[in-house]
Amino acid sequence: MDILALNCGSSSVKYQLFDWKKKEVIAKGMVERVTIGDSFIIHEVPGRETYREEYECPDHQVAIHLIIKILAEKEHGVVSDIQQISAVGHRVVHGGEKFTCSVMIDDNVLDAIKAVQHLAPLHNPPNISGIEAARSVLPDVPHVAIFDTAFHQTMPEHAYTYPLPYEWYEKYGVRRYGFHGTSHLYVSKRAAVMLGKDPKDCNIITMHIGNGVSHAAIKGGVSVDTSMGLTPLEGAVMGTRCGDIDPAIPMFLQQQENLSPKDLDSILNKKSGILGITGQFTDRRDVIEGAAEGNERCALALEIEGYRLKKYIGSYAAAIGGIDAVVFTAGVGEMGWQIREKALEGLEYMGIILDREKNKNTMTRKSENVITTPESKVKVFVIPTDEELVFTEDVVGILEGTYTDHMKFQYSFAKREFQRK
Amino acid sequence: MDILALNCGSSSVKYQLFDWKKKEVIAKGMVERVTIGDSFIIHEVPGRETYREEYECPDHQVAIHLIIKILAEKEHGVVSDIQQISAVGHRVVHGGEKFTCSVMIDDNVLDAIKAVQHLAPLHNPPNISGIEAARSVLPDVPHVAIFDTAFHQTMPEHAYTYPLPYEWYEKYGVRRYGFHGTSHLYVSKRAAVMLGKDPKDCNIITMHIGNGVSHAAIKGGVSVDTSMGLTPLEGAVMGTRCGDIDPAIPMFLQQQENLSPKDLDSILNKKSGILGITGQFTDRRDVIEGAAEGNERCALALEIEGYRLKKYIGSYAAAIGGIDAVVFTAGVGEMGWQIREKALEGLEYMGIILDREKNKNTMTRKSENVITTPESKVKVFVIPTDEELVFTEDVVGILEGTYTDHMKFQYSFAKREFQRK
Repeated sequence: MDILALNCGSSSVKYQLFDWKKKEVIAKGMVERVTIGDSFIIHEVPGRETYREEYECPDHQVAIHLIIKILAEKEHGVVSDIQQISAVGHRVVHGGEKFTCSVMIDDNVLDAIKAVQHLAPLHNPPNISGIEAARSVLPDVPHVAIFDTAFHQTMPEHAYTYPLPYEWYEKYGVRRYGFHGTSHLYVSKRAAVMLGKDPKDCNIITMHIGNGVSHAAIKGGVSVDTSMGLTPLEGAVMGTRCGDIDPAIPMFLQQQENLSPKDLDSILNKKSGILGITGQFTDRRDVIEGAAEGNERCALALEIEGYRLKKYIGSYAAAIGGIDAVVFTAGVGEMGWQIREKALEGLEYMGIILDREKNKNTMTRKSENVITTPESKVKVFVIPTDEELVFTEDVVGILEGTYTDHMKFQYSFAKREFQRK
Repeated sequence: MDILALNCGSSSVKYQLFDWKKKEVIAKGMVERVTIGDSFIIHEVPGRETYREEYECPDHQVAIHLIIKILAEKEHGVVSDIQQISAVGHRVVHGGEKFTCSVMIDDNVLDAIKAVQHLAPLHNPPNISGIEAARSVLPDVPHVAIFDTAFHQTMPEHAYTYPLPYEWYEKYGVRRYGFHGTSHLYVSKRAAVMLGKDPKDCNIITMHIGNGVSHAAIKGGVSVDTSMGLTPLEGAVMGTRCGDIDPAIPMFLQQQENLSPKDLDSILNKKSGILGITGQFTDRRDVIEGAAEGNERCALALEIEGYRLKKYIGSYAAAIGGIDAVVFTAGVGEMGWQIREKALEGLEYMGIILDREKNKNTMTRKSENVITTPESKVKVFVIPTDEELVFTEDVVGILEGTYTDHMKFQYSFAKREFQRK
């Protein structure tokens, strides 16, 4: 039984094929420049050289055809017959309030995803195109939707309601949703294993710091708050997104610079964050290097990022009422020891004692590490995330009828004996 | 020596006359509906009945003339001669980066205040009108400006810089400024006295919760962070202001409802916050009553307010690296025990142990109280604020040449022997 995970962006399709029996990824890759011309596929199979093929993909359907073709090809493929693909899991960014867990896709589900696309106008439409294309290319297998928002649907009303005219919530669904749900789910379950406890007995803050950055307050195994909001713009400083700012600033700038709401939205999403502060970088390695070479704006960007992470740790510890662990994950969370150090300095009062050496030596995307001292009451873990594994297990669970939701489902990675491959 | 404190809004002028020798307020009041017609003055003298007079004030100058006239009147006045007024202190909302302390007003200072009026288009223009009017009415006395922003000018760069295109800071001064400075100053100095320590040895979070709401992280006696930002819209939930929200929401709503930046700014400032959630109330007493009677939106508004206050306490404790005390002040902070209880519940992990009975019994605008148990490592104080006293002392200090800035100046209320009147 092989499970295909698909993640369709506006001009890309990422994929991963997972052999459920062997419990390993047998191929993964990405079609880039879909719909915009000069598209190509990058296809990776463990133990083989990466394969690249130019192939015009004017739409997502052609891109998905291309993926299937290559997966079943003699030379570059990994399956002898397309029938080996038992099901497809689709990443859907926004599930609104309707979807609190992963679901088998039928026409009603597709309609419901379309009904909330105004909440994620950049993300849901390509997700929908991808689902439609994949259903037409692989009509005989089950398709499952996995939502970025679903994990956070356990948030209480006081955490998700904004202090705005209430009719905006009723009319447009303006509330906090949160994203990166599968990542927060994965690392929080792994953290519970590392604590030697059941997830329902753990209070954890998860810090997903990659291209996008979001944090979650996880109390008794469920998300009770998260830093991204209606959209992925709120919360931490990100590579190009501003995160938390004075909500008067958009209107102030529109008036000063005579910008349309769309222009401004684009600047706050694409020209702000670390890029806005440094004026040139988004990659934290460049920022760290710049700061080391004396670039003041790079040094400032690092200070801001670390400081704002620290404030979220404090804030969510208060929201939960004390915590057992903090988890860092995703590219910067796993690799950026300097940023973790800044975020964790001075938190001894709440029981966090950083082991600076361990932290400095933890730069890996493969193994799980503790970076606090043995005496530290609150543990800090660095855990490589694995969103695709959550996709795959949800799909299998739904196929086998063992999945109802992420709280009750027995994920393989939530077990002590789990071995990361 | 009597000191007049003036606070000019767009359609009001508040005043207070303080007898510096006797150390007491001898008169205070407000002219309302200035510039908009049907204006009147409410004039209060301790021990007398409140006096009200209808008097048309088409501009601030007439209003200030009216105040001076009444202060020196035989029947309602308190001074025999206008010469008894030795100086005037003017509240100025926005001092930009230029003003880090109170200053004697001259033409250069006035120009500098005008130069930052784009940052506070609703507040600075009437402040400026008030200064100009008062200088023409009382040309022979010194006029001093006291800024809402000055106390927070000690914030480090990483706390005041937004993750936005850096040129917006250089071009328009887009950064965090913070407000309510005189209130945070006053209560933090009082808290140091209550802790029995020098302010520079205290780490304190101050929660000013009135019509506007702002919090400050005060480390070693100086503000290192505060919740209001470029404008007073950021931060906590307020009566009608939204506080922190996803910065994408303004643009989202503009597009959904076809609103101009100005319309939206007005909704976020005047129709949001507690009013937005409840749909009807801003006064927390109404909200508390509504919640007690089973109104779900009132109950939700209380939960949201308490929860967001709690998160700020956690966040600023982390920012400072542990704290000695939390202070609640201003109308809701002094009177709203229910909201304080919600904000402080579950913070035992950081050393805050609320004495529920003491908290419940603390509803006063006159005395200072401790609402934690004796074992509580972190103390929580309820301290009535007194911004006008800060105004008055700054003015006297500047007149007497003893004031350089709020860090070095010896305020009477920062002394152990100070007695509140």
